[in-house]
Amino acid sequence: MGEPRITPRTFKGMRDFLPQEMLRREELFQYLRTVYQRYGFAPVETPAVEYLDILMGKYGSEGEKLIYRLDYKGGQVLALRYDLTVPLARLAAEHRDLPKPFKRYQMQPVWRADRPQLRQGRYREFYQCDADIIGEADRVADAEILCLIGEVIDGLGLGTAKVRVNHRRILEGMVAAAGLPQEAGPAVLRAIDKVDKVGEEGIEAEFEREEIPKEARGLLLEFLQHPKGGRTEIEALREAYDDSGIQEGCADLLRIWECLDALGAPLDRFEFRLSLARGLDYYTGAVYEAFVDELPHIGSLAGGGRYDDLISVFSPESLPAVGAAIGFDRILTALEQMGKTSERSTATQVLVLRFSDDDEAAALRMTGRLRNAGIATEVVYRHGKLGKQIGVADKRGIPIVVFQGTDEAARGEWTLKELRTGEQNVVPDDKVATVVSKLLRH
Amino acid sequence: MGEPRITPRTFKGMRDFLPQEMLRREELFQYLRTVYQRYGFAPVETPAVEYLDILMGKYGSEGEKLIYRLDYKGGQVLALRYDLTVPLARLAAEHRDLPKPFKRYQMQPVWRADRPQLRQGRYREFYQCDADIIGEADRVADAEILCLIGEVIDGLGLGTAKVRVNHRRILEGMVAAAGLPQEAGPAVLRAIDKVDKVGEEGIEAEFEREEIPKEARGLLLEFLQHPKGGRTEIEALREAYDDSGIQEGCADLLRIWECLDALGAPLDRFEFRLSLARGLDYYTGAVYEAFVDELPHIGSLAGGGRYDDLISVFSPESLPAVGAAIGFDRILTALEQMGKTSERSTATQVLVLRFSDDDEAAALRMTGRLRNAGIATEVVYRHGKLGKQIGVADKRGIPIVVFQGTDEAARGEWTLKELRTGEQNVVPDDKVATVVSKLLRH
Repeated sequence: MGEPRITPRTFKGMRDFLPQEMLRREELFQYLRTVYQRYGFAPVETPAVEYLDILMGKYGSEGEKLIYRLDYKGGQVLALRYDLTVPLARLAAEHRDLPKPFKRYQMQPVWRADRPQLRQGRYREFYQCDADIIGEADRVADAEILCLIGEVIDGLGLGTAKVRVNHRRILEGMVAAAGLPQEAGPAVLRAIDKVDKVGEEGIEAEFEREEIPKEARGLLLEFLQHPKGGRTEIEALREAYDDSGIQEGCADLLRIWECLDALGAPLDRFEFRLSLARGLDYYTGAVYEAFVDELPHIGSLAGGGRYDDLISVFSPESLPAVGAAIGFDRILTALEQMGKTSERSTATQVLVLRFSDDDEAAALRMTGRLRNAGIATEVVYRHGKLGKQIGVADKRGIPIVVFQGTDEAARGEWTLKELRTGEQNVVPDDKVATVVSKLLRH
Repeated sequence: MGEPRITPRTFKGMRDFLPQEMLRREELFQYLRTVYQRYGFAPVETPAVEYLDILMGKYGSEGEKLIYRLDYKGGQVLALRYDLTVPLARLAAEHRDLPKPFKRYQMQPVWRADRPQLRQGRYREFYQCDADIIGEADRVADAEILCLIGEVIDGLGLGTAKVRVNHRRILEGMVAAAGLPQEAGPAVLRAIDKVDKVGEEGIEAEFEREEIPKEARGLLLEFLQHPKGGRTEIEALREAYDDSGIQEGCADLLRIWECLDALGAPLDRFEFRLSLARGLDYYTGAVYEAFVDELPHIGSLAGGGRYDDLISVFSPESLPAVGAAIGFDRILTALEQMGKTSERSTATQVLVLRFSDDDEAAALRMTGRLRNAGIATEVVYRHGKLGKQIGVADKRGIPIVVFQGTDEAARGEWTLKELRTGEQNVVPDDKVATVVSKLLRH
């Protein structure tokens, strides 16, 4: 064919996943699936493509700029999904007969026309893994979600999961108490969202950047100095401010804490913190983000909140909702950094070796037999030297090789070699599968 | 919020998958994963978005029209993937250090701007589940793929898998032997592809439609009358025609049959059949499609072939390749028609019931305990009548309900009810998880 005509390349910010990484990813997906199901969530998938008007007006102006549109001449504008929450809201409004409360999980890629920052792990295509409860206004549903993300993170073995919790009504109350109009809300949220990064010294510059009036800053600072903590600190806030938003938000959070306690969740995992803002427009109640204390640099591994008004955009029936997204890629990065991921690039358990033109039929026959016994088996297609073939198996992480020389072939025997220990067994033809199964169980 | 502002709807030809269907899909994915891994294939994923020039020129002009493009102003044109084979070819050329032979499986959605025909199961978004071997020219690799798809289909319990096999070189030889130029190849393929539908009586009309010269038709018909079968029929064809393409194709197929035999595959599963054409442009060797005899109306459940020239479009190194795609949606449809899919719409094993405002804490505590014991558990958020709650559990397919009345609560006991049998057990608080686990094992 001569020179290649087309340079093989991938669009920046989107990734090929090769076997080593994919095996890790499949393992993490399976883990998440198990925990979600243990909490009573059922799977859902939605199309990659949504009508653009379904997506617009939900993510804030910055988010909307990042929606990929299709070049489609069908009269209506189509786009790739930006997250899994808005498609879920659309789905819940479209399939109105779904029994409520509807507890669903969903693990699918989303696309954002962002400037990719590969080192920071910001991609244009990445998976989201969401769990949401639709149709339950009682805050017991918030507690279930909080309990779930705490347990998901905790079960990874990365360290102790900590979940920071705040409430949109409290944040709105802060804005009102500081004498600012509600329109100033987003700017205040952006500023206080920086507190954990810039510290209280740096917050003044953020107020300046967000053009928050000087006379309001004192009260906002006072709020931010309110101690973080649990029930005691929520109750103290409720005592200190009359604002109806703050009253409502605190009552909600106390109800959530009550349910967390009843569910048996470790209460010291959850931290009420007024500096947690969380960006998305659609939240209306509690918001939260999960971290691992031992990995402060990695950022939040999960986050979510209550969004009681989103579905009514699509439905005459109002459907309260609450949910969380698990940061799949961040978790995988953290697991890799902690050396908690497998290095294997194959699930193959046995490689059948070959030394000459004459041993193909026997090797293929053994391969078929091992597979019939449920053993993941590959066979060498082109014969070669023993050492080289063992090297290939070892490099790929295949634990056992099976082969026969001419003499063994004449006697109907095979050599089984475990690569980890170097131990060898000579076994008759019809016992190979049984012995391999036994070795794999150890 | 008043009237909904946006009508919730999905783009025609794309689907939401609700829990009942998703649970079936996850089960089938898991089955495929297990068989692929047993045959030594490792997972890979590629981005949804590829540069358009990567995709163009591979699918034939009809296929190319169906590629969705993105409306992206980055100077280069982007598109959604149309299948998984061309992205794999791009990946293999881009990651040249992958150890060969590279055996990969991939299960991801693809997109086609086709006119959707929902009754015929033709969608604009659907999953492909592919297994391919890159970097092996020896036809033993073809045999591995053929063996795999036979076993995948057979293991579904739908009936006996039959795999029809033909060879592009033989088809090209037919065209040459009939005195036609190679450019007439696609038209001849299209015509003979219809034989199984229209019968030999109808083939004349197809020849007419495809403008195949009258003088060539006699020999083409003679070819099509060549008996279908196995080794004997391939050998007979080889004896009958001198053409080098036919000679090569027959030698290839005989080599494949030899390897299938050695691998222990049931040879009567594979049928050499000259009327199998298979559409895609990139095939160069053996082509095949798998059916289930008992389900003649459902069409092929898997198909594939050898494509030795595709990767060299992207790479200076020539990489022979062979693979197959499993028809995920068709298989699921067939399983549903045969009543071989589960009706459950949840993986939840226990529902904890509630009767009053006062029993929430106890119900949540029991829920937390059951989950800690690894049992998939949901709790009723709002209390109600016993019968109604049992009805909900039954309808959703939850096998066990757990509840306590006031008296039982005072004694620290719970009632466990198995919905299938109606049997009830009264069990002390700290034994509930153990007894539930035991019931679930039966």
